[in-house]
Formats: sequence, C-alpha cells, structure tokens
Amino acid sequence: MPPKNDWRFRLHEVIYESNTRAGKAFDVGLLIAIFTSIIVVMLDSVQSIHGHYGKLFHVLEWIYSGLFTIEYILRLISIRKPWNYVFSPLGLIDLLALIPSYLSIFFAGAQSLLVFRALRLLRVFRIFKLGHFLTEVNFLKQALKGSVRKISVFLLTVLTLVVILGSIMYLVEKRENGFSNIPESIYWAIVTITTVGYGDISPVTPMGKFVASVVMLIGYAIIAVPTGIITHDLALARRNSKQELPESCPNCSREGHDSDAEYCKYCGSPLYV
Amino acid sequence: MPPKNDWRFRLHEVIYESNTRAGKAFDVGLLIAIFTSIIVVMLDSVQSIHGHYGKLFHVLEWIYSGLFTIEYILRLISIRKPWNYVFSPLGLIDLLALIPSYLSIFFAGAQSLLVFRALRLLRVFRIFKLGHFLTEVNFLKQALKGSVRKISVFLLTVLTLVVILGSIMYLVEKRENGFSNIPESIYWAIVTITTVGYGDISPVTPMGKFVASVVMLIGYAIIAVPTGIITHDLALARRNSKQELPESCPNCSREGHDSDAEYCKYCGSPLYV
Amino acid sequence: MPPKNDWRFRLHEVIYESNTRAGKAFDVGLLIAIFTSIIVVMLDSVQSIHGHYGKLFHVLEWIYSGLFTIEYILRLISIRKPWNYVFSPLGLIDLLALIPSYLSIFFAGAQSLLVFRALRLLRVFRIFKLGHFLTEVNFLKQALKGSVRKISVFLLTVLTLVVILGSIMYLVEKRENGFSNIPESIYWAIVTITTVGYGDISPVTPMGKFVASVVMLIGYAIIAVPTGIITHDLALARRNSKQELPESCPNCSREGHDSDAEYCKYCGSPLYV
Amino acid sequence: MPPKNDWRFRLHEVIYESNTRAGKAFDVGLLIAIFTSIIVVMLDSVQSIHGHYGKLFHVLEWIYSGLFTIEYILRLISIRKPWNYVFSPLGLIDLLALIPSYLSIFFAGAQSLLVFRALRLLRVFRIFKLGHFLTEVNFLKQALKGSVRKISVFLLTVLTLVVILGSIMYLVEKRENGFSNIPESIYWAIVTITTVGYGDISPVTPMGKFVASVVMLIGYAIIAVPTGIITHDLALARRNSKQELPESCPNCSREGHDSDAEYCKYCGSPLYV
Repeated sequence: MPPKNDWRFRLHEVIYESNTRAGKAFDVGLLIAIFTSIIVVMLDSVQSIHGHYGKLFHVLEWIYSGLFTIEYILRLISIRKPWNYVFSPLGLIDLLALIPSYLSIFFAGAQSLLVFRALRLLRVFRIFKLGHFLTEVNFLKQALKGSVRKISVFLLTVLTLVVILGSIMYLVEKRENGFSNIPESIYWAIVTITTVGYGDISPVTPMGKFVASVVMLIGYAIIAVPTGIITHDLALARRNSKQELPESCPNCSREGHDSDAEYCKYCGSPLYV
Repeated sequence: MPPKNDWRFRLHEVIYESNTRAGKAFDVGLLIAIFTSIIVVMLDSVQSIHGHYGKLFHVLEWIYSGLFTIEYILRLISIRKPWNYVFSPLGLIDLLALIPSYLSIFFAGAQSLLVFRALRLLRVFRIFKLGHFLTEVNFLKQALKGSVRKISVFLLTVLTLVVILGSIMYLVEKRENGFSNIPESIYWAIVTITTVGYGDISPVTPMGKFVASVVMLIGYAIIAVPTGIITHDLALARRNSKQELPESCPNCSREGHDSDAEYCKYCGSPLYV
Repeated sequence: MPPKNDWRFRLHEVIYESNTRAGKAFDVGLLIAIFTSIIVVMLDSVQSIHGHYGKLFHVLEWIYSGLFTIEYILRLISIRKPWNYVFSPLGLIDLLALIPSYLSIFFAGAQSLLVFRALRLLRVFRIFKLGHFLTEVNFLKQALKGSVRKISVFLLTVLTLVVILGSIMYLVEKRENGFSNIPESIYWAIVTITTVGYGDISPVTPMGKFVASVVMLIGYAIIAVPTGIITHDLALARRNSKQELPESCPNCSREGHDSDAEYCKYCGSPLYV
Repeated sequence: MPPKNDWRFRLHEVIYESNTRAGKAFDVGLLIAIFTSIIVVMLDSVQSIHGHYGKLFHVLEWIYSGLFTIEYILRLISIRKPWNYVFSPLGLIDLLALIPSYLSIFFAGAQSLLVFRALRLLRVFRIFKLGHFLTEVNFLKQALKGSVRKISVFLLTVLTLVVILGSIMYLVEKRENGFSNIPESIYWAIVTITTVGYGDISPVTPMGKFVASVVMLIGYAIIAVPTGIITHDLALARRNSKQELPESCPNCSREGHDSDAEYCKYCGSPLYV
C-alpha cells in the first residue's frame, strides 16, 4: 500500500480523482483541452478555413497530441495496474485519439482519423462527478439500467419488423423505384418507422404507398412503448435511489462504489489510505 | 396419450418445446438457420454481389429449402393434430417460406418471393422462452394487451382524421401541385401527421401550407395519446403481473398456459405426461 | 309528450338512438353508406379510374345524394325541434355533404366539393355507442377533457416560439435561400419543430443551420410536454371515471347524460317515455 | 414610499399590474397592438403584398413605433428603479423592438431588423396572469422547473452523441456525398437524431446508411427519456403545487412572490401600499 505522501499516489489522486482541488482543476483543464482540440479538428475540416489557417491548425494539432501523450504516460505510471487502464473503454479511446497523429508521419491520409478525438468528449460525463448534477445523473442511470432489458426486447422487435417490412417493400416497389436491394429497403424501413423520413427513397406505386402508410402508422404507435417503459422505470427508480461514491479505486481505478464502501469491491484495496 | 418414451413425444419436445437441452439446441440452431438464410436472400438481392456469387447463393438457397422442408415434415409428424399446426400463423409462415423455392422450378420469377422467408424471423420471439427475458416479455405483453382497445380507438381516430384532412387538402392544393388524387392526399396526410415528412409531396400554395401546419400541430399534439395510454397500462400491469408457462401443449401445440396449469386449456390434454 | 307508439317517436329512436335493434341496424347501415360513398368519391378522383368508370361513379354519387337527402329529411321530421339538429355540428356536416351535388346542377366545378362528404366519417365515433368500446372511449374522453387547458397553454407556447424562430430565420437566411417571407419562415419553423422535416425549405448558410439545430433540439425536448400532461391526466381519470348514458334526448337530441339521469339535463323532458 | 394616490403609483399599477380593471385593459390593449404590429411586419415581408401596400405598411410601422416608444417612456417613469426594467429580459426585448425603426432613418437595411418585434410576443404569457389559466401555468412551470437539471443532463448527452456520430459520419461518407465538413456532419446528426430528416444531406454509401440507421434507432429510443422525466416530474408537481401572487413589486417590478407575501422578496418594499 502506498504511503499517503508517495508521489505516485498523489499523482493518481490528481489524474483519476476529482475530490481534491488539484483533481478538480485537472479534470476541468483536461475537458477544456479536449473541447478546444475538437474545435480545431472541426474547423480544419471546413475547406475555406483550412485554406487560410491550415498551417496554424497543423501546429496546434501537434501541440494537442503532445499534451495528450504526456497525459497518457502520466496515467500509465500513476496507476498500479496499467493494463487495467489501457484496456478499459476510456483507455482505448485515449489511445485511439493519439494514434492518428503519429500514424500521419508514415501514412499521408491518417490525419483524417483525428476525428476519433471526438470520442474523448465522452469524458464530459466525468463533469457530473464534480458536484451539482450527481443526484440527477444517479437517478437517470438507475432508471435506464432498469429499462435496458425491456428496451432490448423493444429494439429486437423493431429490428425484426424492419427486416420483414423492408423485404416486403422490396417485392412491392422493385428496383426501378429506388428500392434497389433488400438492405436498401430495410434502410428505408428504418428511416420510415423512426419517422425520420429523409425522402431519398420513397414509395412510388399506389401499393407501395399503402404499405408505407402501414409502416408509418406502426412507427407512430410503437414509439409510445419505450417512452412508457422509461416513465415507468423512472417512477420505480425514485423509490430506491441510492448514492454512489465519486471516488475510484487507487489500485485498479474502477468506479461505482457504494457511499458507505471503505474497500474496493473489485480488488479489495482500501479506497482511502 | 403417448408414453413418455414414445419417439413422437420426444420429437415433439425437441421441436416444439424449449425446456429440455435438446429443445433449446434445436431452437437456437433453427434461429441461426433462419437468420443465415435471410442474409443469403439479402445479399443475393444486391446486384453487384449477385454478379459474383449468384451461383453459390443459388446452391445455398436450395440447401436451406431442403433443411426447412425436413423441419416442416418433422413438425407435421411429431404433432397429433397436424392441421392445427398447418393453419396456425407460424405454420402458414413456415409454408409460405417454402413454396417460392419449389414454385421457381415452374415459374422463373417466383424466386423473388423468397423474401417471405423474412417472415420466419418472427420465430425470434421464441428466444424469449429460453430464459432471461421471460419476465420482461410477459410484463410488456400484458401491458400491450390492456392497451389494444384504447390504441384501436386512437388509430380509428387518426384514420378518420387523415381521410378528412387528405380530402380537404386535395381540394385546396389541386392536381398540379402533386396532390393528384384523394388517396394520394390521404397518403400525404399520413406522412405528415406521423411526422415522417418525406417531402415527395408537400404543399405549394399559402393556403395549403396553412392546412399542412394545422395537420402537423395536430400530429405533434396527439402523438402524446398512445404514449400516455401505454405508460398508464404499464403501471397497471406491474401490479397484477402473472407468470406464464413456457410449455406448449403436446397435443394441440398451443401456448399461453398459466404457471399453475396442469392441463391444456384449449384441448384438455395433460401438459406434463 | 309523444305516446310510446307515436310514429315520430319510433322514428326518432331508430335514427337518433342505438339502443334498439332497429336503431343499431340503422347506424351500421348509415356507416356503410357513408363509407362506400367516400370510396366512390376517392376512386373518382383518380384520373385513370375516372376515365373508365366516370359515368358509373356519376350515377352512384346521385344515388348516395338521394339516400342522404332522404335521411336528412327523416332526421328533420322525427325530431321536435329541428333547428337544434340543423345547427348542431353533425347537422351542419350532413348539410355540407348534401349541397355540392345539388350545386353541381348549376355550377360545373361544384362537384369537387363532394370531398366534404368525408366529414361525415366523423359519425364513425357513433359506433362506440354500439357497445364494447364504451368504457375505453369514456376514459379517453375524460382524460383529454382534463388536458385541454394544459395542451392549450402548450400550443400557445409552441405558436409563439415558431413566430419568433421563423422571424429570426427569415433574417438569417434571406429570400434567396427559400425563406421568401416571414409566413413562409414560420411554416418552416412548424415543419421543423414538429420534426416533420419535409425538406422543401431547409437552411443553406452555416448560421441558418445553427439556428435550425437549436429549433430541432427545442422541438425534440418539448414534444415531451404534451405526453407528460396526457399521461398524468390519464392516471387521474382512472380514479374518477364515470359512466355516460348511450341515449340522446328524444326532444332536443343532445347527448352526454349521466348513467342515472331520467330527464334531459338540457331541456328537462324525460329520456325514457 | 409613494402614497396610494400618487400618479406614478397609479401608472405603475396600470402598466405593470393586471389586478385592476385599467391594468387588465392595458395588458389586453398592448397584446393587440403587439399582435397587429407583427401581422404588419409579416405581410410587409411578402413581396407581392409589399408591392401593393408597401406605403401603408410604412406608415403603420411608424405609428406602432410611436406607440411603443410612448409605452417604453411610461414604463421608465412609472417605476422607481428604471434600470431594473431596462436590463430585465422583457425590458431589453422592448428596446430591441424599438431600435430598428429609428436606426432605419440612418441605415437603409435596418428596417429588416423589425422582425425582432416578434420577440415582444413573449408578453403573451402575461395573459396567463389575467385569470383562468393561472393554475395550469403554475403547475406546468413547477414541473418544468423540477425537470430543468435532468433535461440539461439529457441535452448534454445528446450534444456529445451528435458530435461523435457526426465526426464518424464525416469519416465514413466523405466530402463528395454532401458531408462537406465536420460541423455540417454534426448538423446532419442533429437532423437525424431528432427525427426531423430534411433529406438535404443523406447517406449515400452502404456503410453510411448503416451508421445512419444506428443514429436513427438511437434517436428513436432516447426520445423516450425527456418524456419520462417530464411525466415523472408532473406527477411530483401535483402533490406540492403552490400558488404564486399575480402582483409585481411596485418598487423593483420583479415577480414571483408567494401568495402570502406582503413584502417584495428582492428589495423589501411592501407589495400593497
């Protein structure tokens, strides 16, 4: 167990935790860096802006890559079991956001993969650990957790429906009306049943319009099902809402400990040293 | 009544039930066969892929047809009253999925009817009998059963509305603006009231745009009704949710028996022999 | 007060009521006549069908007009205060459905007004008086009655929003991008906020796309409000749901009497003679 | 403290309050003026109408500008702390609605800014103070206040999702298919996830259609979340609904005082003198 004034322990607290002042500052600073780096990638993708500021953006992208590389290394050395971090979802995203820059040295087109940096935005949800929203997030999380299975049943039903309806529509409308193959027809069925309705493919024959009307009315009626499910589970969640600890384990860095926990429920090491 | 070690009884258990190990394996295997057979039909519909692998797909389709024919025959001989199966919804779908292959020997275009095989995907809901989702499915089923009548009243109202609004729009916008006849205008009203909005037909005149705005606002407001109904019935369903037996009757193969049932409620033969 | 075997009283029972066998038969027959007459008007509007069967449809339309005229006269003479019927919503619709035929004798184009016959479809809701759906309809009616005010507040808010957002968009996108004037921009705002999204008018400039994104997210978030309101009021309605009498007053023909009423609450004459 | 018969106090009651007869008349008159002035701006934006009545509209716009200028001055002199009004949201809107007219004397194009007058429509919500809707509005207000944080969490999640999904789509579909840069792709993701679906940008490649299908299904499933939240909070709001006073403070003109308040909770001066 590391002593309280061990530098790696303190570094862990700053980088992985948010209950110290330095930890909060690090989290906020990191979010600003991620956000501005994504703005740079976005603006660079606009051709007219790229023409004027392309070189500036190129420099900025390398500065961000440098910062994120340092952050990645610090994350690796401040944790006891680095592989736990490397293969965690957030760890893989952090790596995915770094690789394109270094890859672009060898392959010309690799820079376009910088868009994966947008995935780092998922860290924005860490901001909820910073305080005010904790209750709301826990509440929503619990309700959604209770709905996952019912929503899965619902999505499976919708997927089955769109395959069947798309296949039938392919038979009804034929190739020449835009329904050029079954996967395309299934895409149309999804566009229609979710009420998106691009209009890039739309029925032409009277029979096709009839089938489409049925699909639309089905979509209109069943949208009510997930709503009903979530409303129902929100009502249940309110009754047994439970607080979660904002700390992650200093040993294995996993989260989700109960508010009265003193030891990590995954690796058994104490949460507060 | 068949003795427990009668081969037809055991075959019935494997094919129609899912509470033995062999029954579960059969269900999973069948689902995989259905799923892959639909993938083949799908890919074959994509012209570029058909060009390369058309012959392979042709062979595969006949293999699947063979397998499903054997399955169909086994289903017929393992049940006491085969006609009950033949004329059940699932039985008709199974037959519908078989016919196109044999029809294509005599009629060239019949192969396109293979898309009906997608209907067999409905068997996917049997997977819920395999375990974990049973409670969720029963819960949703019960809530939807309670909503059927109210949703019917709602759909009847929507259908009446679209006929009236479509007819008025036909008068307002006239032929030359795409509203070429009343059924077409009703199709437009459905596209609009369900908020799909393809844009293949859209109002041109100021008066038409005004009527369209009214239709949209109506659609926007009444989408709330089915949602409210289902949410309400989910809340009711939770209170008196009731378990359903995963077994089907070995005699007439119908399902939906209560968890404490010992005899089939449709034909009176014992469920467990 | 008419004696029980007065012919006008019995005629009233057949035409306005549905609790005798003859009354039910009349209601069902009338609905079939309305429904088929609308089918004829619909088919006649399809140019290719009109070419072949135009003359047949012309004859059929006059037959229906004749039938509905007889029905209208019977309604007038079987009721004590005919003006009450003439100026009731259903009475006005019945008249509106008759006029175009007679008007077409003098004015060539008047026949196109036959689409108003679709309004008679509203009589379909009388079918709910025929039995099974009575509870569901009463339940929904009561919940919607409770929601009317809240939905009005919601719709007023939406209307204010679309005027403001449409005006701003007119300033942002200008004439040349399809937002040719403020009413048109408001139409666009309604198409967008209700998530219909035809795409006949859509933002072109980056600034316009930004404003549009805000409008969409607003629409996406506030769709939840009417749903919440109706769900809430359905829950309330269940508690104090109240039965309604299927009879209308033989004197003034108004409906909505409580199940224990013996006298008409509008004109005081006895409901059962 | 002003004596009850001070002219400024009485003017304040008429302009800022609605619990006297004169106050109600002023509110209604103002709303009519705002509404008709917006109608004028709207009609003037329609080119064909502008051609005929342009001069009349020009005169009318100056009359409205004059009336609103007088109203603005009266508001300034009848309140004790005018700056409180000037920098309040409604005060800023009132000013924003005035400036364009006077600006148009010096700058030719400034008249197009008259559309900001539409913002004054927000005063329509004052009508709820006039009586019947008070309970409904208070009820909705309270429920929405309770939902604000949860809806914020939801909107933040949606925004994160559209940035990530838009970026990925930019990589998948490339420039030539309409996804010309990342901000444009994010706009597409918003159009899709909110189920608006203009169709001005839509996926072309099979891979793009697959990603789009995922986005649509996500949008279809998560629309349920805000609905669930609001329904839930409406149920809570009903229990502890609380009346609000229709009066505003005669000193600082702020509103929202509890029904038992005697002194302004913002500046401490008595509400009734």
